[in-house]
Amino acid sequence: MPELRKDPVIGRWVIISTERGKRPSDFADAEEKKKGGFCPFCYNHENKTPPEIFALRPDQSPRDKPGWTLRVVPNKFPALRVEGQLNRQGEGIYDKMNGVGAHEVIIETPEHFKDLANMEISGVRDVFWIFRERILDLKKDIRLKYVMIFKNHGMSAGASLEHTHSQLIATPIIPKTVVEEMEGAKVYFDYKDRCIFCDIIRQEINDGSRVVYDEEHFIAIEPYAPRFPFETWILPKEHYSHFEFISDEMLNHLAVMMKEVLGRINAALNSPPFNFVIHTFPMQNDSEESYHWHIEFMPKLTRVAGFEWGTGFHINPTSPEDAAQYLKQITL
Amino acid sequence: MPELRKDPVIGRWVIISTERGKRPSDFADAEEKKKGGFCPFCYNHENKTPPEIFALRPDQSPRDKPGWTLRVVPNKFPALRVEGQLNRQGEGIYDKMNGVGAHEVIIETPEHFKDLANMEISGVRDVFWIFRERILDLKKDIRLKYVMIFKNHGMSAGASLEHTHSQLIATPIIPKTVVEEMEGAKVYFDYKDRCIFCDIIRQEINDGSRVVYDEEHFIAIEPYAPRFPFETWILPKEHYSHFEFISDEMLNHLAVMMKEVLGRINAALNSPPFNFVIHTFPMQNDSEESYHWHIEFMPKLTRVAGFEWGTGFHINPTSPEDAAQYLKQITL
Repeated sequence: MPELRKDPVIGRWVIISTERGKRPSDFADAEEKKKGGFCPFCYNHENKTPPEIFALRPDQSPRDKPGWTLRVVPNKFPALRVEGQLNRQGEGIYDKMNGVGAHEVIIETPEHFKDLANMEISGVRDVFWIFRERILDLKKDIRLKYVMIFKNHGMSAGASLEHTHSQLIATPIIPKTVVEEMEGAKVYFDYKDRCIFCDIIRQEINDGSRVVYDEEHFIAIEPYAPRFPFETWILPKEHYSHFEFISDEMLNHLAVMMKEVLGRINAALNSPPFNFVIHTFPMQNDSEESYHWHIEFMPKLTRVAGFEWGTGFHINPTSPEDAAQYLKQITL
Repeated sequence: MPELRKDPVIGRWVIISTERGKRPSDFADAEEKKKGGFCPFCYNHENKTPPEIFALRPDQSPRDKPGWTLRVVPNKFPALRVEGQLNRQGEGIYDKMNGVGAHEVIIETPEHFKDLANMEISGVRDVFWIFRERILDLKKDIRLKYVMIFKNHGMSAGASLEHTHSQLIATPIIPKTVVEEMEGAKVYFDYKDRCIFCDIIRQEINDGSRVVYDEEHFIAIEPYAPRFPFETWILPKEHYSHFEFISDEMLNHLAVMMKEVLGRINAALNSPPFNFVIHTFPMQNDSEESYHWHIEFMPKLTRVAGFEWGTGFHINPTSPEDAAQYLKQITL
């Protein structure tokens, strides 16, 4: 059973994932091992993943067989497990609980060499549609407080398989970074009676210098204080706290936006590795006026080093205004 | 002039380091460029760095010439600059200030292929001695609130030159991670009237399962909730809030401890890339009962991916008890 442990000083939770247990020798040459070779996410290898949770099967093909266009499976090496009780307890001055949660993989397409940037709009839409559906389903388990949806693309962004996929991890606690974001937004709301993200959108549209792409329902900007070069945020223009309340129509717009952003990043930066993360309000909470869901997209161009780990602040060699300028000029 | 910008939601400061200004094409192949070739940190290349701030020159050789055993220079591409005023100002809803601070490089030895693990004890001691001296000097500039001392070793840990060196960055604000650590320790002290780090040391010595090396004045442990496999903390057993109050005698012990830890990590993990960071109380503040300086050492064995960026929580595949077990068994 994985364990959740809390740093007693800073309050940061860590998942000690014994299922993935590694000996010192397992870390050697992790770089070289992974590329090429057998892919458990391709057709006819369905039995190499745990049984599917869901699949889109336009041809009505049977479970765990080829024919699907999108497939959701439990992670074979889950960071957290669905079974069991939290069993919160102390260990002297320390605190821990069982690693209860969910860890799922969304295989975005059966085509090994496709990815979100070159898939059809409808395929990208399906990926974000399933994100919504999985949250709505996991929400029924009230032990789970948060669902973090993210994508690691490329080895140096942490992807261990090259076949395009995203992941979700549902946790029994609200993660620290999310709490900080909620609290920051709340302080602003208490002071101004306005959502800070709505204010950011208004200021960015007026100013224009950090806008990458502006469409009817979404806007893509380089944030004012980006941690990374070409960090890009995608926000719905209307105020919603929860991603899972997104309408079918909005999903189409989001798919268009994601393809625009990814296409531009790929053209400008030669298809870099990247991460994106959906920031949304905790699923067990009601709609919230002070919080606004959004996607943070981070190309992996620089390395995080000692200074960043020690301070939590980042050195970014590219201003967001310059980055927006480059991305805006690109025609797809 | 570099700029400090604050994320309006989460309150995280970012250094937009225009001096290092990068265009999209500069990010391509950053991996391959660096190894081998000309080294500005070797003898006879002293004029390739900015003029030295300090050097140990047992042979009384002249400034910026060979003969030194340890040399401190300003970073050629500084993240922050010493000149100028902070000039705090708003930009609509955003906040920024000038990037005033200091960014120095400590070249630990003239020998290109040496590093902390294979240097003499006296050489390692000199490195930590100069850390102390630099803080004591920078402390006189009251604009500077914090000095972060860190080392990036190996390219994937963020080192851009292979010749062994450490860095310091002095900042006009106390970094977020440091504030969180100070606050966490303060809450504990207010509740218990004891330093949490002193309590950690006591519990770890009693328990023993996470102790890597225990000597007269310092202890090396795997922390209870480590972010990374083989993350190792080194703490002085006596309570001191500020690293710069370390005595000459203690410096000798610290040098022994650093060589022990590095030697074991190198033996267990085949000399991995790593970062270490000195966590110390803000230098303009008086001695503090609730805070305890220490070093956090992080081998770079796994990759930080979307989940970690989104949540601030980490998945660690190696338990600290297992890691301590491996490191303890090694004989140097």
